[in-house]
Amino acid sequence: MNGVNDEQMAPQTFLYGCVLESGKEGHFNPEDDELEHQLDLRMACVDPSTKDELHTVEVEGRDSEGQVVKATLVTLKPSTLPSVCLGGFTITPPAVFRLKAGSGPVHLSGQHLIMMETGQSFDESDDEEEEEE
Amino acid sequence: MNGVNDEQMAPQTFLYGCVLESGKEGHFNPEDDELEHQLDLRMACVDPSTKDELHTVEVEGRDSEGQVVKATLVTLKPSTLPSVCLGGFTITPPAVFRLKAGSGPVHLSGQHLIMMETGQSFDESDDEEEEEE
Amino acid sequence: MNGVNDEQMAPQTFLYGCVLESGKEGHFNPEDDELEHQLDLRMACVDPSTKDELHTVEVEGRDSEGQVVKATLVTLKPSTLPSVCLGGFTITPPAVFRLKAGSGPVHLSGQHLIMMETGQSFDESDDEEEEEE
Amino acid sequence: MNGVNDEQMAPQTFLYGCVLESGKEGHFNPEDDELEHQLDLRMACVDPSTKDELHTVEVEGRDSEGQVVKATLVTLKPSTLPSVCLGGFTITPPAVFRLKAGSGPVHLSGQHLIMMETGQSFDESDDEEEEEE
Amino acid sequence: MNGVNDEQMAPQTFLYGCVLESGKEGHFNPEDDELEHQLDLRMACVDPSTKDELHTVEVEGRDSEGQVVKATLVTLKPSTLPSVCLGGFTITPPAVFRLKAGSGPVHLSGQHLIMMETGQSFDESDDEEEEEE
Repeated sequence: MNGVNDEQMAPQTFLYGCVLESGKEGHFNPEDDELEHQLDLRMACVDPSTKDELHTVEVEGRDSEGQVVKATLVTLKPSTLPSVCLGGFTITPPAVFRLKAGSGPVHLSGQHLIMMETGQSFDESDDEEEEEE
Repeated sequence: MNGVNDEQMAPQTFLYGCVLESGKEGHFNPEDDELEHQLDLRMACVDPSTKDELHTVEVEGRDSEGQVVKATLVTLKPSTLPSVCLGGFTITPPAVFRLKAGSGPVHLSGQHLIMMETGQSFDESDDEEEEEE
Repeated sequence: MNGVNDEQMAPQTFLYGCVLESGKEGHFNPEDDELEHQLDLRMACVDPSTKDELHTVEVEGRDSEGQVVKATLVTLKPSTLPSVCLGGFTITPPAVFRLKAGSGPVHLSGQHLIMMETGQSFDESDDEEEEEE
Repeated sequence: MNGVNDEQMAPQTFLYGCVLESGKEGHFNPEDDELEHQLDLRMACVDPSTKDELHTVEVEGRDSEGQVVKATLVTLKPSTLPSVCLGGFTITPPAVFRLKAGSGPVHLSGQHLIMMETGQSFDESDDEEEEEE
Repeated sequence: MNGVNDEQMAPQTFLYGCVLESGKEGHFNPEDDELEHQLDLRMACVDPSTKDELHTVEVEGRDSEGQVVKATLVTLKPSTLPSVCLGGFTITPPAVFRLKAGSGPVHLSGQHLIMMETGQSFDESDDEEEEEE
């Protein structure tokens, strides 16, 4: 029985990556499936096709009052700082990533964590049970 | 019943961002709502409009004796180091961020965490209960 | 009895390292041994034999729907940024690392963590029991 | 009752900062108050008044046998690397920080954590109880 | 009684530092004392006496099958990247650090953590129990 409880809270870790370019946003918006989703952003980097200018990444999420807010996440330049560790910046969905400056590509990567919601009722989620095993 | 206790301590994560310029401070001072607030600073960065000089960010908070203290958080320069990972620097409110050198803009971002206070009495907070659900 | 449970979940930490070159991938794919494996990537770096050009490392893993996905992990250049902290990027096996740009060598290092699977049945693993003690 | 135990172990977080110059050390040596103190160093940085040369910071603490030991913590140069994330380097008091090279100023910042000592006897600390409330 | 168990698992933190030069290795190999030892590497840096060339640090440890393995930990150059955060790279003893390139000095620092072994029985361990069973 304790095992069941432990399993409820143990997050599963999946790979997340997106590429930002002019007019091409990245999204973290998992489907509404009664599970708790979280994105831990780990790295931002350019690649050899990225023009040598400052690239600034903006993230759009929610503040503590539920309002949409934007924050400037990271600024990179191929010849100065081609990679930056984001150190596990935790993003709660829904979130959007976009370039505020530069035409990209800029790559974001990290871990998509999935947990059971602490208040989840198993009675309501019978249909998903196979996926949890 | 254990579930209720777990839920009490599980922090909720929101997006925090502020922009520092000459004469424009950033604040982390959530309203007094009986909840425990914390800011985990993740990133500091400049943007393409930032002048190419050293920019130094100061944080003003409280030391262990309740006195106001200032610490120098980070120094950035667009052509040398346009972004710095702050690695989850935990800030307890109230705190103020300001530029000590440079005219900005410098962007700070991170996670606003909200927890129940461990010693909170539910009897005293009936009026806020809707917000917690 | 509690001791046994604690021991089940305590991860053991081993050293992981791989070298990426043109045509030489790195793999994290421990044998199927009923234990839970995880890789916490810590560092990426070049060495003095690495040509002075941008090197981009790609990781191939699984997303939350079990599909193979690729993410760009880090970009390094010997004369600009010879080392990058990856900050504990957690990789769930199976995963493949490869150079998308540059001919290497690029070195990845980190910690190989081994845990008991939470749902493990000891009845099925009698033959391995000596190794677990 | 569990609440009391939880509260005992929950660390409180305060702001710590010090400035190192030639002949001016920084100290982390909280008064002996029966509480457990810890410093999590987060950032080291220069400022615009720092001369453009390599600055090396040394920390003096204790090894596992109680002997005084010195370690070289970080090296900064304004034109190359004006800020470095220290990633939460945990320092147990007493500790001293000083410049081994360069004349400064170099700024260190982080979190001063205060916990109850796990073995603390409340019977012995009646006089301090007001401060703990 | 719970207090005793908690205390068993609370790690104590000590300062660790070593200096690597040509022909001078660093070691993390605490004496066999029935306690569990761990090294969390935090920082690598050069100093003003380090020649301006790429310095590459190798770590030698054990993989999950008990075999000796080597990994390339970090590459530094005084004029490009004089310090690198290692972010808490966890090293299980025995481990050896050495320069693969460059003549040093390169400094490593971090935290030496000491824990009780989880399965340790105080009654049974008078004679040292021959390596934790």
